[in-house]
Amino acid sequence: MEKLNTEPNWADIQAAHQAIVPYVHRTPVLTNQNINKLTGCQVYFKCENFQKVGAFKIRGATCALLALTEEERKKGVATDSSGNHAQGIALASKKLGIKAHIVMPQNTPSIKLNAVKDYGANIIRSGNHPDDREKMVEQVVADTGAIYIPSYNHYNIIAGQATAAKELIEEVRILDVLMAPIGGGGLMSGTAISTKNMLPNAQIIGTEPLGANDAYLSLQAGTIVPNQTVNTIADGLRTNLKDKTFGIISKYVEEIITVTEQEIIGAMHLIWERMKIIVEPSSAVPLAALLKQKKRFKNKKIGIILSGGNVDLKNLPF
Amino acid sequence: MEKLNTEPNWADIQAAHQAIVPYVHRTPVLTNQNINKLTGCQVYFKCENFQKVGAFKIRGATCALLALTEEERKKGVATDSSGNHAQGIALASKKLGIKAHIVMPQNTPSIKLNAVKDYGANIIRSGNHPDDREKMVEQVVADTGAIYIPSYNHYNIIAGQATAAKELIEEVRILDVLMAPIGGGGLMSGTAISTKNMLPNAQIIGTEPLGANDAYLSLQAGTIVPNQTVNTIADGLRTNLKDKTFGIISKYVEEIITVTEQEIIGAMHLIWERMKIIVEPSSAVPLAALLKQKKRFKNKKIGIILSGGNVDLKNLPF
Repeated sequence: MEKLNTEPNWADIQAAHQAIVPYVHRTPVLTNQNINKLTGCQVYFKCENFQKVGAFKIRGATCALLALTEEERKKGVATDSSGNHAQGIALASKKLGIKAHIVMPQNTPSIKLNAVKDYGANIIRSGNHPDDREKMVEQVVADTGAIYIPSYNHYNIIAGQATAAKELIEEVRILDVLMAPIGGGGLMSGTAISTKNMLPNAQIIGTEPLGANDAYLSLQAGTIVPNQTVNTIADGLRTNLKDKTFGIISKYVEEIITVTEQEIIGAMHLIWERMKIIVEPSSAVPLAALLKQKKRFKNKKIGIILSGGNVDLKNLPF
Repeated sequence: MEKLNTEPNWADIQAAHQAIVPYVHRTPVLTNQNINKLTGCQVYFKCENFQKVGAFKIRGATCALLALTEEERKKGVATDSSGNHAQGIALASKKLGIKAHIVMPQNTPSIKLNAVKDYGANIIRSGNHPDDREKMVEQVVADTGAIYIPSYNHYNIIAGQATAAKELIEEVRILDVLMAPIGGGGLMSGTAISTKNMLPNAQIIGTEPLGANDAYLSLQAGTIVPNQTVNTIADGLRTNLKDKTFGIISKYVEEIITVTEQEIIGAMHLIWERMKIIVEPSSAVPLAALLKQKKRFKNKKIGIILSGGNVDLKNLPF
């Protein structure tokens, strides 16, 4: 896998897929008759909640690490994340024999801390403010010489995340609409590039919590507008677009549908109850958007990326 | 499918499978590296939580209804159940164009009531005591001429339930041990017959809550001993063995492992957290038993039937 300095093209995504296949699951695509009835569509769910580390993040992390030179690998890698990216980098590093330094804030739930520890990563605790994390990871990079791997604003990461939609389209073949949630935009960017190349006529729809709607605002404004609030249960979607993801999303994504907290929780409950699978709130955002605007999607074939399943079972919203 | 008046043999189970295939899902078999590590075994989970109606019960119900004559089908069917069997009979009846009368006690959760209603069954409410239900269903049979379909003590039901283990063994091929939970014993009986025929050397292990251990006590005593208590969260396992299931289980099941409530809840949490799938407490009993006695099963290939996924998400034990 080469290091990508420009937006991934189709050949890059094919190369990324071939490179990461030995390290990730080919997750199943599930359908549910009840949800089809409720939405009036045929919905195909790509289940990245069943992915290694419980989220799509292992795809991009693996793709980024595989692009490092031998010399870079020896230096180790560093990132700051309290979420699924931390686990992705930790596991991918373990598999590739790379030392990983992960900066995690003090308020990281112990279950996530332990998962990263179990993968053998070096954990450095920081203050809870994003600035504290950023400073700390800069310090780690300065001290150790490790290569910094950001969580989404990185073309190899985006190429890796694109493989989820690639597999979904390979399996279902015909889809009218592709939907994904938008946090920092890595998954959405990758989904958009794969869809544009495989199904040029399909609609590409982004979905976002109303309480963290930076992508919606940014597309309206034609420039990056950071989140005004991060009032959402969808903890994976509180991050802001950055230049690379904004560039791709504003080129390919037709529209962004925003949904309320109540709509997210309702869609999450529906997936749990009817499909008997565990998804995190971020994963439920596309279905919430589909249910909200189901009239315009009637009878269409809809592909949805279920981004992950890492949720605190002791603290459910229903 | 013929009506079975004796213990199903291998030809009967093959016929049952062929008959019900158009009406049920072939559910997936899942594995999980983390659970393999924790148990020291290779565990293959047959996911009947993804089955229609969310449980294996649709298999037996369909098999029983397909064995009715044209004349009997016209009379309709009746059963009493507040659980998964009610939904199984209701859906199978709907598919086959048979009128179903389902006696459900007053304390049935509305979600289960509504599911049965949605399948178009006629619901008759009874008192909560098992005697009230039994009297009421007798009355319904007397009034309507409907055919009574019990929930497990019935050879066609047992032949239908046997198809879950049949599919599991067809897929994995070699297994050293088969484990299932025991309530009334329909699933365990079917699992035992399929295993005996397909893998004559495999160990067949029953699993049961300590708080509803009638099968354990019955096998010890050599005669049916009803539950002394039904103090268990595993609501599908509170019923007693009856003559047909006791006969089969005492012939084929090598041993019954009982587990505490804490062990059931722990195993259920493990399945939810690591496999990202929703199972009901009854489904977690075999894994709880395996974890409890993992030393003796070390390095073995274990098949486990996850019986269902119908659980009240608002009332979880963790």
